[in-house]
Amino acid sequence: MLTTEARRKILEENDAAATELRERFRAAGTLVVDLISSPGSGKTALLEETARRLAGKLDCATIVGDIATERDADRLRAAGMPSRQIITGGACHLEARTVRDALAQADFGELDILFIENVGNLVCPASFALGEDFKVVLLSVTEGQDKPFKYPGIFSRASVALITKSDLLPHVRFDVKAAGSEIETLRPDARMILVSTVTGQGIDAWCGLLQEELAKKRLAAAVP
Amino acid sequence: MLTTEARRKILEENDAAATELRERFRAAGTLVVDLISSPGSGKTALLEETARRLAGKLDCATIVGDIATERDADRLRAAGMPSRQIITGGACHLEARTVRDALAQADFGELDILFIENVGNLVCPASFALGEDFKVVLLSVTEGQDKPFKYPGIFSRASVALITKSDLLPHVRFDVKAAGSEIETLRPDARMILVSTVTGQGIDAWCGLLQEELAKKRLAAAVP
Repeated sequence: MLTTEARRKILEENDAAATELRERFRAAGTLVVDLISSPGSGKTALLEETARRLAGKLDCATIVGDIATERDADRLRAAGMPSRQIITGGACHLEARTVRDALAQADFGELDILFIENVGNLVCPASFALGEDFKVVLLSVTEGQDKPFKYPGIFSRASVALITKSDLLPHVRFDVKAAGSEIETLRPDARMILVSTVTGQGIDAWCGLLQEELAKKRLAAAVP
Repeated sequence: MLTTEARRKILEENDAAATELRERFRAAGTLVVDLISSPGSGKTALLEETARRLAGKLDCATIVGDIATERDADRLRAAGMPSRQIITGGACHLEARTVRDALAQADFGELDILFIENVGNLVCPASFALGEDFKVVLLSVTEGQDKPFKYPGIFSRASVALITKSDLLPHVRFDVKAAGSEIETLRPDARMILVSTVTGQGIDAWCGLLQEELAKKRLAAAVP
């Protein structure tokens, strides 16, 4: 087991690198969104749909972390989203230094929004700041409504919670209200959206939220 | 980032504790099964159904790991399975020492089968031996067929792969054959079973596999 001291040191080093990234994204006026979920909750599908909706309106790109394979970056590029895959090998989460290195290699140019699709894992990525404006947690309706209280770290840190695969609601037992209530307990100011990339439910609200947050960030930067 | 040296030390210490546990389970004739999957893939639902099917035939118990809440142990006890919840706090996986301590507290008595329901996480639990006879990986059809190659650690270490929630196949895009092919590439001797706790598909095969493995273990112990 990792000692508390060793863990503290790792997080402190990461926080320092994240602070540098955050300053750089502030200066560039780039909104940065860190997406976290279990494997298969629909992060890549959401970003494919987001790429299509924002095409021609905003310059977006994605850094995507996986243990292995270039699959997600390939899917995102096919949807028109410039993407850089980080293959973490054994590592179960992205760290700020990894993001910095990937950015240096990717050469995305000036961006309105940078998405960071974290490794599919509800636990470890929650503790690592990556210079993001906010974290988004995705919970698919097939995973069960009991997950927020079982994974309080990420559900308390994410200011946006997307309940995904709403098209499957008729086929599973998932009480949206009960899940929402747990999320609200852990994060009273969380914004929740029910989404489906199959039916399109919630995608307008999600893209609207992104555009609104980008505008707020730029307005804040313009105020001396 | 954890250094390679620090990681090696943690795994070595764990392996030593796991070897002690393995010897103890061998002497007791207890089959030990470590279940690993993403959050919400159906580990607890499978064990609830297993408890009902094996009731009166075999003495089973479960040690269940979660970041927070006693929910899974409560569900399992309600299904007639003696269970001990390990609340890991921040830790993203179970370690052999944690299992040993939980066993000491649980006082399950003599067991035919001990299930270890690991923390919902496809990444970190894969590297930790817990004295088990084998690891079982669960992949629900809603997570997508591309997961084995994205999480090769667990899919190469688990000798049993359960494709869960088969009742949802008509409603999702999931190519069972493609998933099976990836699993077979990573683990040529893996036994794969398509299961559903809703329709009952595959549950007989799963329980049969458990009984067969228990018989094999006891036969091996009886041979001088």
